[in-house]
Amino acid sequence: MWLRRARTIGLLVTILVTIAVPAVLFAKSLLTAESKTYKQAKNVILFLGDGMGDSEITLARDYAVGAAGRLSLDRLPFVGSVTTYAVQEEKPHRPEYVTSSAASASGWSTGEKTSNRRISTTPGTDEDLPTLLELAQKAGYATGDITTADLTDATPAAAVAHVSDRDCRSPAEMKACPKDKKSAGGPGSIAEQEIDHKVNVLLGGGKKRFSQVIEGGNKTLMEVAQTRGYTVVTDTAGMQKAQGKHVLGLFHDADMSLEWKGEAARPYPGSGPQTCQQNQRPANEPSLAAMTLKALELLQKSSEKGFLLQVEGASIDKQSHIMSPCQQIGETIAFDSAVKVGLDFAQTHPETLILVMADHGQTAQIIQKPEDSKQPGAFSKLITKDGSLLYVSYATAPQGKAQSHTGTQVRIAAIGPNAQKVSGVLNQTDIFDLIVETLKLR
Amino acid sequence: MWLRRARTIGLLVTILVTIAVPAVLFAKSLLTAESKTYKQAKNVILFLGDGMGDSEITLARDYAVGAAGRLSLDRLPFVGSVTTYAVQEEKPHRPEYVTSSAASASGWSTGEKTSNRRISTTPGTDEDLPTLLELAQKAGYATGDITTADLTDATPAAAVAHVSDRDCRSPAEMKACPKDKKSAGGPGSIAEQEIDHKVNVLLGGGKKRFSQVIEGGNKTLMEVAQTRGYTVVTDTAGMQKAQGKHVLGLFHDADMSLEWKGEAARPYPGSGPQTCQQNQRPANEPSLAAMTLKALELLQKSSEKGFLLQVEGASIDKQSHIMSPCQQIGETIAFDSAVKVGLDFAQTHPETLILVMADHGQTAQIIQKPEDSKQPGAFSKLITKDGSLLYVSYATAPQGKAQSHTGTQVRIAAIGPNAQKVSGVLNQTDIFDLIVETLKLR
Repeated sequence: MWLRRARTIGLLVTILVTIAVPAVLFAKSLLTAESKTYKQAKNVILFLGDGMGDSEITLARDYAVGAAGRLSLDRLPFVGSVTTYAVQEEKPHRPEYVTSSAASASGWSTGEKTSNRRISTTPGTDEDLPTLLELAQKAGYATGDITTADLTDATPAAAVAHVSDRDCRSPAEMKACPKDKKSAGGPGSIAEQEIDHKVNVLLGGGKKRFSQVIEGGNKTLMEVAQTRGYTVVTDTAGMQKAQGKHVLGLFHDADMSLEWKGEAARPYPGSGPQTCQQNQRPANEPSLAAMTLKALELLQKSSEKGFLLQVEGASIDKQSHIMSPCQQIGETIAFDSAVKVGLDFAQTHPETLILVMADHGQTAQIIQKPEDSKQPGAFSKLITKDGSLLYVSYATAPQGKAQSHTGTQVRIAAIGPNAQKVSGVLNQTDIFDLIVETLKLR
Repeated sequence: MWLRRARTIGLLVTILVTIAVPAVLFAKSLLTAESKTYKQAKNVILFLGDGMGDSEITLARDYAVGAAGRLSLDRLPFVGSVTTYAVQEEKPHRPEYVTSSAASASGWSTGEKTSNRRISTTPGTDEDLPTLLELAQKAGYATGDITTADLTDATPAAAVAHVSDRDCRSPAEMKACPKDKKSAGGPGSIAEQEIDHKVNVLLGGGKKRFSQVIEGGNKTLMEVAQTRGYTVVTDTAGMQKAQGKHVLGLFHDADMSLEWKGEAARPYPGSGPQTCQQNQRPANEPSLAAMTLKALELLQKSSEKGFLLQVEGASIDKQSHIMSPCQQIGETIAFDSAVKVGLDFAQTHPETLILVMADHGQTAQIIQKPEDSKQPGAFSKLITKDGSLLYVSYATAPQGKAQSHTGTQVRIAAIGPNAQKVSGVLNQTDIFDLIVETLKLR
């Protein structure tokens, strides 16, 4: 079994590292070889499963491909553990053990820890921190930022925007960030900054916010984007046809539609037994995999130098918050399909580093069969691919309240140039340094 | 920050694999070099944190060394994810998503999945499966099996014994395993089998069970052990002095004493804020680190060929079951100190493969501050090394019932010969194949 696994998923690492053991003894002669043969990475794709901790990965695997099955994200050979904590706004030397998506995304986007509502700004002092995407643009790389959420949601925002509060998403929502308003000399809302930055590919939801008129102007954000050279598309067909160095896709008023549906978890005796209903996304909204494929096509044409692309599966987290296991699993599987698009691309473009990680853990736990009416929280019984019953529990907040992110370390996996540096325990801020080094951004 | 981390924890992997990239292009010439320079592994140390999932590791790190600190188990460079599921007794082709310690330990000990109460026997058909320890003995390696639990507990048992039910621990406890009784032609209880196998080093708790008279005899198990050449010791001083090829240490009547104490988690408003009370273990009981150090000393003298040692931190799980965060963390830190003993040994004995993993996840989750009296389950507020408050929640079973194991994949980390094969996603049964291959046991 071991050998079979190694053959299918880890052949590269096995070959590389088996050879490395004697190779280190010949290090001196090989350093010459290295200087001749080392290939600079050209592209980086950073896949982010929001709220996709080890528990959530296992849940999706068990349900959709069986406990002994393998997801695409399982197939990356180099693995590490990532600590995700944020810091306190008032005492930034002290950790906040449970991060928000905003602080975590700011962490890998800027290399610096921040507090829980901030978007790529410093805790306490509110200074803007340069992001990976900004550095990549300066260095001549094409850039992309795609998500299943509203494009102004925390994770896509932190890649490119700088505001003191994640809620400052559009010109009409700047109450928490008076200094960030354009009229106050600031960079504007998240939506405004995304357009101003001229990220090459922006795909996701958020049409309603991008339909707002910009501060101090009379054009909507979508109109401004067009005047700046963006092709703006709003459905799958439009996306497929879109060409050009700048494409803005807005496929839903807010967060994009979900892939699967099913019953939410309920208090004892729980919901189910249930089989999830798949194929729920309207065809006029593209899948995350389709958006990823299109982004890769566009980014390759946008710069000879290469690209940096961030791909977020956003609603794994959102559906965990509301204890909806089918929806959560469906989003994880859709995310995994996007990872497969990346892996396929890397096969023909081996100068591509692929990273798959999460911003934080979430609530769902696979537990033993609850036998007692006093079972805490809520749970659901799922009938899996294996034909077995799986009990998934949600119990980090009271019924009717959003379930909690968790502070657990999460998995990161990698393949491609520099993937071997994903090892041991990393911090989410280390991912910044890894990508900076990989693309030589500084 | 990235570079600093790489230097401190991943220098070896960085050097090895950076060189491997060009090396693969020179594979042909290097294969000759490899055959000259590849070192056969001599020793394997398998460290098992019972119930030590990623959440539990993070909890211990955050509390004891701070969120940015690093445990010894964090310092192993090669990381993988391990699926832990068991199978159903009646339908062994179907998974049981939440494993017991018995089935999981049987999995890596034998390379085969079994059902949840079995000790290294097949589901349904109840056949004995050869274990790693048995194969290592046959191949001439010294063997050791040490734990903080009673030596007849599931994890140490699965390394060497074969019974149909984990409760069949001593001659007086064979009700569930009539066919395994010696009088029925079976191999006897777990305690009897441990002695019969002549494992070189057996250290842990369980004095009461080993004080029982063997079936059909008039000597106690401890007396039988002595007649078979075992030096039997019952306290730290005795252990330090012990010599010989066979040492049985029984340092407590049942499970060994705990390292730390503190308040259990409680329903809202929770227990604490608390700081754990350390140094609770009586000095006449050795720490897991001291047992590990002694085992390494003894095993080196027992066989020229090398050794296989299993080291279990058992009460991480036991204290999670009863929602005692301080006790759980104390046991995790004590386990980590044992890992450090292993890492120190490997520095001077680089022919040693060290693996650190868990048998399954457990209940504890680090959550956001509970603000509502309807908070499910129980929680405790811990004052950490960082000086921050950490909220740890237990909510997989009702108050007063044992909290549940969870079905999440768990972390495995490795260093030493063949450590590079720890990558991607493994199954706990793959660890059997890895150790068989590493020590050439078949």
